Amino acid sequence: MSLPLVITPGDPDGIGPEVTARALAHMAPELRTVPVCVVGAREAFFRYAAELGLSFDEGAWTFLEPGSDEEQVEVASVRWGVKACLEQRASALVTGPIHKAKLARSGFSHTGHTDFIGSLCEVERPVMAFIGGPVRVALVTVHVPLRSVPSQVTAPRVAHTIRVAHRALVAQLGLSDPHLTVCGLNPHAGDQGLLGDEDETHIRPAVEACREEGMKVVGPVSSEAAFCAAVAGTTDLVVAMYHDQGLTPLKALAFGQSVNWTLGLPLIRTSVDHGTAYDLVGTGRASHESMVSAIRWARRLSAARS
Amino acid sequence: MSLPLVITPGDPDGIGPEVTARALAHMAPELRTVPVCVVGAREAFFRYAAELGLSFDEGAWTFLEPGSDEEQVEVASVRWGVKACLEQRASALVTGPIHKAKLARSGFSHTGHTDFIGSLCEVERPVMAFIGGPVRVALVTVHVPLRSVPSQVTAPRVAHTIRVAHRALVAQLGLSDPHLTVCGLNPHAGDQGLLGDEDETHIRPAVEACREEGMKVVGPVSSEAAFCAAVAGTTDLVVAMYHDQGLTPLKALAFGQSVNWTLGLPLIRTSVDHGTAYDLVGTGRASHESMVSAIRWARRLSAARS
Repeated sequence: MSLPLVITPGDPDGIGPEVTARALAHMAPELRTVPVCVVGAREAFFRYAAELGLSFDEGAWTFLEPGSDEEQVEVASVRWGVKACLEQRASALVTGPIHKAKLARSGFSHTGHTDFIGSLCEVERPVMAFIGGPVRVALVTVHVPLRSVPSQVTAPRVAHTIRVAHRALVAQLGLSDPHLTVCGLNPHAGDQGLLGDEDETHIRPAVEACREEGMKVVGPVSSEAAFCAAVAGTTDLVVAMYHDQGLTPLKALAFGQSVNWTLGLPLIRTSVDHGTAYDLVGTGRASHESMVSAIRWARRLSAARS
Repeated sequence: MSLPLVITPGDPDGIGPEVTARALAHMAPELRTVPVCVVGAREAFFRYAAELGLSFDEGAWTFLEPGSDEEQVEVASVRWGVKACLEQRASALVTGPIHKAKLARSGFSHTGHTDFIGSLCEVERPVMAFIGGPVRVALVTVHVPLRSVPSQVTAPRVAHTIRVAHRALVAQLGLSDPHLTVCGLNPHAGDQGLLGDEDETHIRPAVEACREEGMKVVGPVSSEAAFCAAVAGTTDLVVAMYHDQGLTPLKALAFGQSVNWTLGLPLIRTSVDHGTAYDLVGTGRASHESMVSAIRWARRLSAARS
């Protein structure tokens, strides 16, 4: 039997438990014989799972609530999932939303989910990427004010993002010779220096260094051109310089079905692309589409993994 | 007979003349009886028009090359078209691409096409907007380096963009009570100040001022949410703070069929969304889709004009 997929529904008070339960109910035909281990707060999850008639007593699905006096259950669950993956007892980790500010109040010191998983894996700088419809995007900077973006777009960071993304496309997606397209920072990728010089001074040298290492990578190009190439299928991944440049087109194209994919880890991790949405809990209005996509992609990536 | 639509193919050395000729050939069935006046360099246009068998000697289509010793033909053509619209001798103006740097060398002092047309209309600050598929977007800032964007996003500018866009949706698109969605500047619209304060200090007051004037306008919201609303059809126009935030999703969604629409003018003006593309001239690879869309939208806007 293949290794189980670990799913952590996340914050017990958010929409994670219900979207996980609904995703599993929706995917039952395709997942019935697939080993799945849901790890999280029992009561929060079974409130929905029981209603949907999901069975964890027999068959390929199991449920586990990690015991911990020191950590919140959603933190302990992620820790458990990462450990299982690292010890080759699980094929991949799919995470539901946690609430950073709430966890911070009880002593959680990481800036976010991805950062926490990176530290458990002893990876200093994991790369946040997203898959949405035909488009994949990796981000050089993530949650920083727009004002701080230009100074954080340095050649080493851009090159790091390209290298990590290239490696993941080969190792996790199974592409033999992936093609990457790197966005410029400025409109029209700076228009030959007329609209800012960062594209030429920081981004181009990074792209050229990676090309010299044998990667198929082009850029900096205007972000419109990069995303049109992704839609047309002429590039495998877009490297975007900042949050809105990468995620606005991706989410508009994927519309509720995009998936967060963490690159640079010694394990496969996907995640929903939404937060805990406390205001939607129990209303039935929270969509499980992103969780469905996250589970499907985790399976696809673990199957392709080399 | 209705007033003619004026089309200026733009730079005679760029792809404007050929995409104009091909667009007209493609649209002949729908435009045969519609008065169209092409204004530009005769030789550059007829090189393609003759080959395609376009006839300007009889029927509803006319051609005109403006004479001028002082201006480049593409500049004189736009001047002619604007004058014809202002004097109610034309229904709308559709422009092909010009080359700013080239024109600047011969004394053209405007920063671009839109700015030039604004000055001819004595409008100080026209607003650049785009239509692509289901999405319409108006930009607060356009061709500025990303580094300079935050300081240019001021409450008066944001409010100006909202007001001008609202007016155009009513007057040119014929919507009775349009709904606008305003993007934040920072990721997640600043996440309540955690990721930058411009969203709260500059954008929110502008949105509130416009709401007090009776407009249906929401924001600042994350740009992903704004564009998802546009795709879902729950908002009529997105106000984006800067070039890549607005145009990357729009162009990815519209994929070659987006149209530049200038708001705030006393005339209807649409334009292709591409440049002169000197490297594509005569290769047959330049797409006429944007010109087709620009012509269709100019007709639709003049029909709806109130």
